[in-house]
Amino acid sequence: MRDFVLFSRKGWTAGDFPSMLDGGRLDTVYQCALTALFMSHRIRRDVGYHAVLNGPPDPPMHLLVDGATLRDVRVDERTWEAVLRSVLSGGTHPGVSVRKAPFQEVVSGLAARPDTALFVLEERGTPIEEAVLSPNNVFVLGDHVGLPRAEERYALRFGEKVSIGRARYLSASVIDILNHTMDRAGR
Amino acid sequence: MRDFVLFSRKGWTAGDFPSMLDGGRLDTVYQCALTALFMSHRIRRDVGYHAVLNGPPDPPMHLLVDGATLRDVRVDERTWEAVLRSVLSGGTHPGVSVRKAPFQEVVSGLAARPDTALFVLEERGTPIEEAVLSPNNVFVLGDHVGLPRAEERYALRFGEKVSIGRARYLSASVIDILNHTMDRAGR
Repeated sequence: MRDFVLFSRKGWTAGDFPSMLDGGRLDTVYQCALTALFMSHRIRRDVGYHAVLNGPPDPPMHLLVDGATLRDVRVDERTWEAVLRSVLSGGTHPGVSVRKAPFQEVVSGLAARPDTALFVLEERGTPIEEAVLSPNNVFVLGDHVGLPRAEERYALRFGEKVSIGRARYLSASVIDILNHTMDRAGR
Repeated sequence: MRDFVLFSRKGWTAGDFPSMLDGGRLDTVYQCALTALFMSHRIRRDVGYHAVLNGPPDPPMHLLVDGATLRDVRVDERTWEAVLRSVLSGGTHPGVSVRKAPFQEVVSGLAARPDTALFVLEERGTPIEEAVLSPNNVFVLGDHVGLPRAEERYALRFGEKVSIGRARYLSASVIDILNHTMDRAGR
């Protein structure tokens, strides 16, 4: 199992957001879902993608996209806008769920699974190639503003900082690079 | 300089496409622009992104997004839908241009620059780490269907096949992985 956790500072927590961009950067939430879960003509069934939305009106909300059960989706932003509007308004979609939960609960829940290693992405962390991987690996990352200090400190109780280099990539690109690194490592 | 060339089999060549998805998979064209050109809070000024659109009504069309001069853009799909509708309808946007030109002309034009190496992405190519890079590197890739045989053969006159592994990634993910690989190699 591979899990990605995105901390979204301002992502809206109701389905009536004005647009993906103006919904507290739900476009970032979409882009990370794209790179976390999709390969060419195939969904990554062993990936869980979590976004913790901390925007109005009802934060915090844990959005989970479970690759194992995800279906009826395309890879474009409009498709995901419709999915998000639905599940954030009480609707359902196979493999996508929301529940009221803070970042800390999401992180500690994932870290408590057996055989799990947790990593916080940070430019100055241990190079990912040197990190000790487990059967289950959890990667925690911030949105375009980065992970807040308190959340970073909390996540580091369960793991260590890792780095994919000194360059500052889009969150979605970080996930692509991690997926590729993990694919190569056979994880 | 780093250039990416996407061969889009069906991408529409006029601004009145029904949607990004139904415009011959212009969503893929957008996603590749995203990963080719954007870092966190920064545009890659040394990247050129080329999409050759072969869909109706007026193929082939060479869409160029020049990182050196690109401005006034956000990273969400709607922004790019508006940009594409504009430039494909005769409008202008800084750093984005279209002209009537086939894939062969785009590829041979890029390959003719001094100090340029060209690579065609293919699962069974030389591992990218073993490829001999140049000051200017051009990467040619197909859309969700892959590069047609004739276009692949043509591009290979100017370079060789390289691989990022046996897994079949989204075109946008391939670009993320190449950008990361090139960043690390200092190219």
